[in-house]
Formats: sequence, C-alpha cells, structure tokens
Amino acid sequence: MIKAGIIGATGYAGNEIVRLLLGHKDVEVAWYGSRSYIDQKYADVYQNFFKLVDAKCMDDNMEALADEVDVIFTATPQGLCASLINEGILSKAKVIDLSADFRIKDVKKYEKWYGIEHKAPQFIDEAVYGLCEINREEIKKARLIANPGCYPTCSTLSIYPLIKEGLIDPSTIIIDAKSGTSGAGRGAKVANLFCEVNENIKAYGVATHRHTPEIEDQLGYACGKEVLINFTPHLIPMNRGILVTAYASLAKDVSYEEVKAVYDKYYENETFVRVLDKDVCPQTKCVEGSNYVDVNFKIDPRTHRVIMMGAMDNLVKGAAGQAVQNMNLMFGFKEAEGLLQVPMCP
Amino acid sequence: MIKAGIIGATGYAGNEIVRLLLGHKDVEVAWYGSRSYIDQKYADVYQNFFKLVDAKCMDDNMEALADEVDVIFTATPQGLCASLINEGILSKAKVIDLSADFRIKDVKKYEKWYGIEHKAPQFIDEAVYGLCEINREEIKKARLIANPGCYPTCSTLSIYPLIKEGLIDPSTIIIDAKSGTSGAGRGAKVANLFCEVNENIKAYGVATHRHTPEIEDQLGYACGKEVLINFTPHLIPMNRGILVTAYASLAKDVSYEEVKAVYDKYYENETFVRVLDKDVCPQTKCVEGSNYVDVNFKIDPRTHRVIMMGAMDNLVKGAAGQAVQNMNLMFGFKEAEGLLQVPMCP
Amino acid sequence: MIKAGIIGATGYAGNEIVRLLLGHKDVEVAWYGSRSYIDQKYADVYQNFFKLVDAKCMDDNMEALADEVDVIFTATPQGLCASLINEGILSKAKVIDLSADFRIKDVKKYEKWYGIEHKAPQFIDEAVYGLCEINREEIKKARLIANPGCYPTCSTLSIYPLIKEGLIDPSTIIIDAKSGTSGAGRGAKVANLFCEVNENIKAYGVATHRHTPEIEDQLGYACGKEVLINFTPHLIPMNRGILVTAYASLAKDVSYEEVKAVYDKYYENETFVRVLDKDVCPQTKCVEGSNYVDVNFKIDPRTHRVIMMGAMDNLVKGAAGQAVQNMNLMFGFKEAEGLLQVPMCP
Amino acid sequence: MIKAGIIGATGYAGNEIVRLLLGHKDVEVAWYGSRSYIDQKYADVYQNFFKLVDAKCMDDNMEALADEVDVIFTATPQGLCASLINEGILSKAKVIDLSADFRIKDVKKYEKWYGIEHKAPQFIDEAVYGLCEINREEIKKARLIANPGCYPTCSTLSIYPLIKEGLIDPSTIIIDAKSGTSGAGRGAKVANLFCEVNENIKAYGVATHRHTPEIEDQLGYACGKEVLINFTPHLIPMNRGILVTAYASLAKDVSYEEVKAVYDKYYENETFVRVLDKDVCPQTKCVEGSNYVDVNFKIDPRTHRVIMMGAMDNLVKGAAGQAVQNMNLMFGFKEAEGLLQVPMCP
Repeated sequence: MIKAGIIGATGYAGNEIVRLLLGHKDVEVAWYGSRSYIDQKYADVYQNFFKLVDAKCMDDNMEALADEVDVIFTATPQGLCASLINEGILSKAKVIDLSADFRIKDVKKYEKWYGIEHKAPQFIDEAVYGLCEINREEIKKARLIANPGCYPTCSTLSIYPLIKEGLIDPSTIIIDAKSGTSGAGRGAKVANLFCEVNENIKAYGVATHRHTPEIEDQLGYACGKEVLINFTPHLIPMNRGILVTAYASLAKDVSYEEVKAVYDKYYENETFVRVLDKDVCPQTKCVEGSNYVDVNFKIDPRTHRVIMMGAMDNLVKGAAGQAVQNMNLMFGFKEAEGLLQVPMCP
Repeated sequence: MIKAGIIGATGYAGNEIVRLLLGHKDVEVAWYGSRSYIDQKYADVYQNFFKLVDAKCMDDNMEALADEVDVIFTATPQGLCASLINEGILSKAKVIDLSADFRIKDVKKYEKWYGIEHKAPQFIDEAVYGLCEINREEIKKARLIANPGCYPTCSTLSIYPLIKEGLIDPSTIIIDAKSGTSGAGRGAKVANLFCEVNENIKAYGVATHRHTPEIEDQLGYACGKEVLINFTPHLIPMNRGILVTAYASLAKDVSYEEVKAVYDKYYENETFVRVLDKDVCPQTKCVEGSNYVDVNFKIDPRTHRVIMMGAMDNLVKGAAGQAVQNMNLMFGFKEAEGLLQVPMCP
Repeated sequence: MIKAGIIGATGYAGNEIVRLLLGHKDVEVAWYGSRSYIDQKYADVYQNFFKLVDAKCMDDNMEALADEVDVIFTATPQGLCASLINEGILSKAKVIDLSADFRIKDVKKYEKWYGIEHKAPQFIDEAVYGLCEINREEIKKARLIANPGCYPTCSTLSIYPLIKEGLIDPSTIIIDAKSGTSGAGRGAKVANLFCEVNENIKAYGVATHRHTPEIEDQLGYACGKEVLINFTPHLIPMNRGILVTAYASLAKDVSYEEVKAVYDKYYENETFVRVLDKDVCPQTKCVEGSNYVDVNFKIDPRTHRVIMMGAMDNLVKGAAGQAVQNMNLMFGFKEAEGLLQVPMCP
Repeated sequence: MIKAGIIGATGYAGNEIVRLLLGHKDVEVAWYGSRSYIDQKYADVYQNFFKLVDAKCMDDNMEALADEVDVIFTATPQGLCASLINEGILSKAKVIDLSADFRIKDVKKYEKWYGIEHKAPQFIDEAVYGLCEINREEIKKARLIANPGCYPTCSTLSIYPLIKEGLIDPSTIIIDAKSGTSGAGRGAKVANLFCEVNENIKAYGVATHRHTPEIEDQLGYACGKEVLINFTPHLIPMNRGILVTAYASLAKDVSYEEVKAVYDKYYENETFVRVLDKDVCPQTKCVEGSNYVDVNFKIDPRTHRVIMMGAMDNLVKGAAGQAVQNMNLMFGFKEAEGLLQVPMCP
C-alpha cells in the first residue's frame, strides 16, 4: 500500500483521481491539496464523496508532501509544477504532472505556445511522456511523468498505427476534435456557464491551441520527421468525452483489411484501446467513466483519404485514468488495477 | 460463483444489471435474454460492452433459463414475469422481478392501477418487497423478490423514519418527484426523442401514476394505517437520477436535532443511505452511477411542515443496483459486493 | 416612437428586453447600461446581436438616463434601483424595475427576507405590482412598476382563479417549482457552470427563498387574508422555462367543469394565459421564447386536492416580456405589441 | 395575401414553416398536410400552437392542394415530392420541395446516393436550387424550387467566396460538420432517444452521407470544375444548430484583409449572412431561431491552410427559413418578410 498526494485535488481532474484511487487496492490518498479550499472538508467541495472521504483540504506544499507520500499528482494550471519541483522532491517521491510543463522537449517551443517562462528546464529531458501504450517501458523506470493532454492522447492513439507504418502522408493531417465541458476546468468563467454552453457549439483556439505542438511532437516521433497539422477543438454541451475526427491522405492504396491489421498490430493486446468493428463509429457515451479509448477508421476511395476516429473520457484516459495507469506502471502494480470500470450507458 | 440470467437484458435496467455484475466477484452472467435482439451480439446493442461481453442475446424462455442459472432477473414490462413464472421455476432458481407484478399485495388494487389481469396471484403472498434497508431479513430467505419501483424506493426511504416514528401526519403527504429520462425505458417513442425532452420539463401521470399505490402501501405499513398521498412525477432533461421533494405537516413540534436523530436511528449503519449535513440539499449528480441514496430534510417553522428530500440514480438504487443488493442478501454474499462504485461527478 | 434605456442590459433579462424591443414598432433602445462592460460594443458581449445592435455599453447613471429616454428598465440586483431612484427621475421617465425592490409593500418584510436596508421606502406605496392580467388598470396609470418575479408570476397565475373564488383552502398551498438556469443570472459562479448543472437536479432555498413572501402577498390579496405557503424551487438543466406544480386542498366538492369555468372566467380573454385542454400538462418547451403562460389543473378525488400547473419562459413572461407588456400598458400601445412571438419547438 | 399548403406539416421542418408563416403578413396557411395525423388538431400534435392554430391535419393530396393554395411546401422524406408532382400541379401552384428530390441535376448520381428511382426526372432541369444568396434571380422566376439541404447550405455559404475567387485548392476541401438532433427528424427511432443522444457525440455517414454530392455540385459550379470532398457529419446533444468547420489549402499567399474583402464582396449586402469580426468564432446559439448564417475564417500560416466556419439554425436557414425566403422571392414579397426574428440567447 503506497500513499498518494494530489496537488489540485478540487479541480475536475484532481477529483477524478480521487474517485479512481478510492477503488484502487494498492493506494491510499493521504493529501488532498487545494489552495482555494484549505481546511474545508473535501466532501463539502465534492458532495459525491460524502461519507467516503473524511479528509480536509491541505495546501500545496510540495516539499512537505514529498516527505509524506510515495507519489505526487499535480493536477494544476501550467507552470505550477515546474515552479515547485526540485531534485529533493524527486529523490523522495515520484511525480506525475497532469499539466503541460514537461510534455514538450523543446523548451523554446513550450515557452512560445504557452507564453510563460519554464521554471525547471533541467528536468525536461528526464521526464517521460506518459502515453502508456507507446512509452510503457520508459514509464516503468521514470521518476517524473509528463501526463499527456486530453486531445493529444485521443489524437495520437487514433493516428499512431497509420503514421508509424507509413500508410498516411504526414503533411496532410487535419484533426477536428470535440470535447465535453469538463475539459475547461472548474474555474468560474462566464463562457463556461450552463446557459452559455448548453444548446451551443463553437470552435475555439483555431490554429493556435496549445495542444497542437504536443500532438505534432508525438506524431513526429512516430514517423521520424517533423509534422505540422491543423488542429481545431470544439466545445460540446456535455460533461465528459472527447471525440477526434482526423483526416489524412493515404500514402498508398490499401484495403480495409490491411489498415485493420495495422491497428490490430498495435492495439490487439492493449487493455484500454478498443478497435471497433467495421463501420462502427466511436461514441463518447460508450466509454464514459472508463479508461477505454475506442478507435476506428474509414477509407474513402473517392478522395484517397482515411478518416480516423477516436473517443474517450477526457477526465479518465485523458487525465486521471492515464495518470493512475502511469502510477501502476511506475510502482509495478497491475497496469489495469483500479481502472476496470465498465463504461456507463446511458 | 453463481450464474445469473437476465430476461430483458437490452432495456436500460437490464443493461445496468450487466454493468454491475461485470464487476461482481461472485456472479457470472450466463444468459442475456432479449426477445427483440435474439442472436445479435449483446455488445452490438450496447457498444459500451465491446470486448467486455462476447455473448449473443437469447430468447426469454424462463423454464430453460431456470435449469441453467441460480438467479433470474426479469427486467421486463408489467405482466411478463407473472405470465412466465411457476413453481417449477421457483424450485430451481431464485427470481428477482424488476417489474411491478409482485409489489402490491392486493391483487384487485394491482389490476385496477395497471389495467391488466394478474396471471400468477398465487405467488403474491410469498413475494418479498425488496427494499433492503427495511425488509432485510425477509429478503435473505426469499425465493421471489418484488424489486421496488424507482419512485417508491426514493420516496419511501426519504419519508420512512418520520412516518414510522409518528412525527408527521400521514394524511398530509405530498410527493413531487423528478426523474431523468432513462426511467422511461428504451422503447422508440416520439415523446422520448431527444428534441422532445431536451430544454423541456413537464409533469405526467398527475394523480394517476402507477407508483402511487406502491408508495402508499409502504408508507401504510410504516405507520400502521391506510395512507393516501399525492404523487406527481416530472420528466427532466437528464439521463439518470431521481429527486424526490416530499411535504408533510408535522405531528408535533420538533427540533432539527430531534428529526436528525430519527433519520440517524434508521440509517446510521446503512451503507447506501447517506443523511446529508444540515442544510445540504441532495443532488442527483452526486449519486450518479452509484447505489447511494442521499436524503435530507428541512423544517419550516412558519407552516409547521417538514420538507423531505431524496436523490438517487434511478437505474442503480432505483432498479439494477437494488436488484443486485437483493441478490447479495439472498445468496449470503456481502451486501455491498459489486455495488461500491463511487458516484461520478461531473 | 419612444426611447427606452436599460440599466443592466448585459444580464440575461436585460439582453431579453433588447431582443424583444428590437421587434417592437413603437420603441427604440437608446441606452444600453452595463457597469461591467462600459465602452464595449454590446454586440461583442452578446454575439447574437452582431450587425443588429451597433451601440456601446454605457454606465448606469439613472439621472442622465432620465433626461434621454421615456422609460427606464432596471434589470439589476436587489437594492440598486432603490438606491438610484428619486422624484426627479420619476418626473421625467417611467421606471419599470425588474428587481424585487418595490414588489413587497411591507418594508420590514422586504428587509427581513432580502437582508438589506431599503433605500427608497417612500416610493413603495406608489409602485404598482406589474402582473398585467390582475392589475391592468393600475398599471396604465403608474409611473413606477414593480415587475413581478419569475416564480411569483407563474405561481400566482396558476393559482389565482381558484383562490380568488374560494375553491381552495389557502392554508394548504404547497408550490413546487422548477426553473431553467438562466434564472440564476449571468454571474460567473461555480454552481452555475455547465458541468455542475448538467445531468443534475436539486432543490435550493428550501423554506427560505425570497420569492416566498411575494407569492404570499399576491395570494393574500386574492383571498383577502394572510396566506403562508411552502415554496420550493429546483434548478433544472435547461436554459429557459419555469414549471410550477402547486397543490391545495379543495374547499368544497367541485367538478372538472366547474373549475374549468373558473379558469376561463379569468383568462378566456387574456392573450397570454392559455388554459390547456383537459388532461394536457403544461410544458416549458411549448412556451419557449414567448410571452405565454400555459396553465392547467387536475382534481384528485382520492385526496380532495387539486394540482395546479403553470409553464412559462422565465426570461419572457417571467421578466423581460412582462416588462414590455407593462410598458405597452403604461404608454397606451397595444398590450401585445412586440410580444407575439410564436413559441419555438423543438 | 396568398395561401400556402404544407405537406409534411407535423415534421420538425414543417412545424417550423408554420411557426414562421404565422408571423408573415402576406401568407396564410390553408392546409396542414400530415398523413400520420389526419383529422387530429394540429395544435394537439404541437402544443406550442395551442390557441394559435385551430386547423386539423389533412392528407397529402397534392392535386387537391394545388387547387386551394398558391404555394406548396413539401417537407417530406426523399422521393415523395417526385412521386406526387406533375405539370397540372405546377401550372396551378408554385412548389418548394424541402427534400432532396430536385437538388441534384444528374439523375444517376441522385439514384446512386439515395438508392431510389427518381419518379419525375422531367422536372429536374426546370427546378432551381434555392440557395437565395447565390441563385436569387433564377429563384424569382421559378415554379419549382429544390430547397437546399441543411449541411449544403451551411457548407456552401462558408466556402463559396473563397472557391469562387480561386483562393483555395478545390481538391483539398474537408468539411467536418456538427448538427443538433432536430436534423434527424421526428421519427421514433431508438438512436434518437434522449438517453442515446444526451452526453454523447459521434460521427455518422462517414464518407457516405447523402449531402456529399449536393455540396460537391454547388462547389463545382462555383469553381467551374468537378470537386470531390470529404464530408463528415456528427450528431450533437442539442436541439438546433449546425456548425461547419471546413479546411482547405490556400491556392496562394493571402492576408487576412484580402480574404476578408472576398467574403465582404459576396455578403456585405446580404441580410442573412453575417461575416463576423476577426478571430470571433461562429456559435450556433447566436443564430438560434433566426435565419442568419454566421461565417468566419482563420488563416493558418504554418500549414498554408484556411479554416472556414459557419453556424446556422438547421431548421430555419437550413430548412423552413430558407423555404420562406425562396417563397418571398418567388412571389415578389420583401425577401426578409417574416424572417427577421432576432436570435434567442441564451
């Protein structure tokens, strides 16, 4: 039984880590960090935990925390983890950072897209990008995990087999993504009020969204050269779920069976990636509350393009679930421990 | 490890039984009965079960089923269970009926409110009303369970301590209930289309809803005399959740502490009933996906009434969860086995 | 053609006044007051008005405004109108206050329920409660209108005929109300975020909501004696709409036809109150975007109670529409001018 | 004052024609055709019209109808209009067909994509594609209008200026579209039940949707050569609204100002197309209930692509509103008569 601490426990991702760890047999949450709610009962902030969590919220003192726990999750805004972390902390506890601070290897690129100075560039090299299905072995040995962004997780897993195997032209990739509103966080903003989101859909961050370079990096590693993409996220009137619809030109003529075989090659033995049957489209509802990513594809012979689709729960595989999956790998637990919730439908 | 069969496995309640039993360590689902989808893969009907359930849908032959399984869940329209059941079946398998067929002891009352003839009145006496928190000992010994309706479960648990202890006047009870749309089932009806339900609220079955006599019976047993109530359900644009707001005149002057003590007397040791802190209102979101019922009350000294509130997930504690809880009691499993999902929020 | 000014034009009610007045042939909006958005283009705050409104937001200087316009709408938080108004303003412009400041005649009661000091008690007597169907003649002569609250409008209109005619016992009235989220305003609060409201329902302000005394006053005027009620509002995951479900014991035996005749007596000639056909329940969707209130009732012979129901759009008849209807009466325009939008469904 | 008849008046599009015509000063609805609801009161099917429409539903006898009215709207499934229409009808009444029967000039293409035989190919040439902003003069002289599909309207208007002016490479166009559920019609299907759509998003008709050839035709006319596109629609949990996000490679280097000038060239004088300010994304909520289409674009210098976006109400500009706009042109009414509803927000 290890102990975990969460910095940012009262955000939606932090709250989801708590939900998952309550059902994890090898971990106990020992620190509910939340600068905004210090000394308030955690279950008063999240009423769903009434009688299930008795603890009060603590501050975000990462030094103190490292003395108390084995693993620290930072579910915090960009820049905070980088500003708190140091060698002393890493020597005492493993850190899984759900922010973008250590996802991008090129610090200049990070600083340009995020508009802030990176406070701990010395740890960027060491940090392992925690996309478990792709970097499993490195994750097992890591002290510091850069937990992938929600859009990059779904996008990369949807496209990876085809770009890795050279079946698509990397210069033609367009990713049109749709996300539920929990991805926008729990901050009190007019734009995220019920009446502003309900019965509405819009794109945002068009051609400028910060997850763009992260996706480009991962796709670039897969195909061995620099990739530039178009990435357009949209805000959808639902709580949870990300759907990615990605387009690319085929690099050569391929049949359904050939493409299916490529997906199977990479995902057949993966617990959490499900390649759906022919012509079945991924739906966010069918993975809700679970760590699964459902992917599928459709070849359009008229345009010689392939449409790649992926659906997942942005708070689980897109954040907390993947963080727990990383933790499981780092501590030698079963990879799926605490993560086998069946998707809830309806 | 016992075997379970489900008749009506492709309805929303049946599907939820499958979800819960997949996480239950003592039970295996051996029969997915669905007259409408015979020979189709169950996971093709409910895509959330892709790669998790391989079975195909079977017919609803209860005789054959009783030879194969230890427990049969009937999640079917009114009348079907009564038309299929017989002594032979009950001698081989325990039956948990999620329909109303065996909930009302007075067959005339059943036939009047449901407008159908009862086909198996000889089993009404034997059937145990499966409200676990109230009838636990009888349930343990039962062969046939009448699994309570969703509204009756939430209404009865919200009101029970006060009517049992004589704190409210039974002739003044008014129950205003609100339900998510999954309660209307998966039948293809215009009235339940997305565009008809979304951005809308209405009452239905005003003064005539079939759950009325079921609630009246349970409240009547609690206070030892006949009770007549007003019960008004409303359809809410959400998938899951029931909220009950009940009103009654106080039988005598009582303080908050006295009433709280009465709720605690009945529910303090109950896993699945949570009496919230003072002035905190139950919210359906805070029990979503779980077997919990959150209850609370407010005394209005101006009108000498008490407002009693309860929130639960209509598909879990209001249907499948309670059915599994009954099964656990009947087979001597831990009562909460397979039912400790943490409510999912948001 | 008269000129109108709006203080609080960027709230949801203010925005709805703008929408309605754009279609009104006798009025021009000359002042978009919004302390929070001074000097910003109004259409930048509400993108629906792009190319339809060119004006910028102004401050809330009521003195200056009174020199410029014929009618001032104050769609502002409690207390603001009372703190700004004076005889000079009222001598120059008519004022329609959408806040609660002048709704309650007993200043002590106002101060107790609202927890603030009333800054202009000298105008309370003069103010006319702007429930057009009931106070039409007084409204025509008024300088200052207390525009009714959303819940009080729907509650009073649903119950008025029966309490006025002595058919129900005033001491037994219970009002269970449900409102879309626009009623909570456009302030950035965590509780009103999409993810907190969606897939959720809860009661709030139980036994303490500020609309309680306003409803009690109106019902009291109707029956000629003091009335105490229970009023419980609920927050519903939809943008617009209020549904009231009200319960009362019948004062004597009456038939459906007798009660229907009483509703018709009061509403037959009213443009905006529609008494639905027998057994048809009011639905908020069927009045959305319009100034209509749909009402109906059901007698329960078992309990000798009557259930009274009303549905309306909280932003139209519950706020902006009624304000415009009041303005029409005050200026001698056709009462329905600018208010004949057909409800939008779906 | 002309008379209008509607075949398919009880579908969502037919119902929306009724809503719009009730506010139109030059037209009276004289025939509510609905095979499914013959002899039932129209307001019993759509409760929003209670007291506003007294008529009963009629059959869909187009011959009889043509003797009674000046214009016939057919808001019916594919194939029905073509099977009913003849020269006699067209000599007596103008016909505006909201189905796809006369949208595609190549009858073989129509039959291939729609999988049915065309019953009236002799009228295809005569029919005018009723996209008012592009074919205004032809529409004025037409007897038979092929009212455009919802996706084609929004897609074509979003892309038209750039493809017409040769600024984009037609072979690179990808259209990712998102629609509210009213686009799926009012048929009772499990897939459109509230619980199946709410909290869910999925693509459908990937690479096979029937609106693909219609969009390709219109874009082809604009650029003077055959165009093949990828078109992927998605189902969104909201009632109304379509958002189009379209991608294309720029044919040459252009600045924001140059592209903006091209949009303005085509739409500056159009009442119903609004080119938003720089960096403002179209939102469906901001056109809800109105005939407006909001469009905008973003140049991505990294990928040399342009992202074109359009938002509209699928039932108004995407169906009934455009049909009324066509009628206005055909009968010499003001083009915007009956269509100046202000978008409703929230």
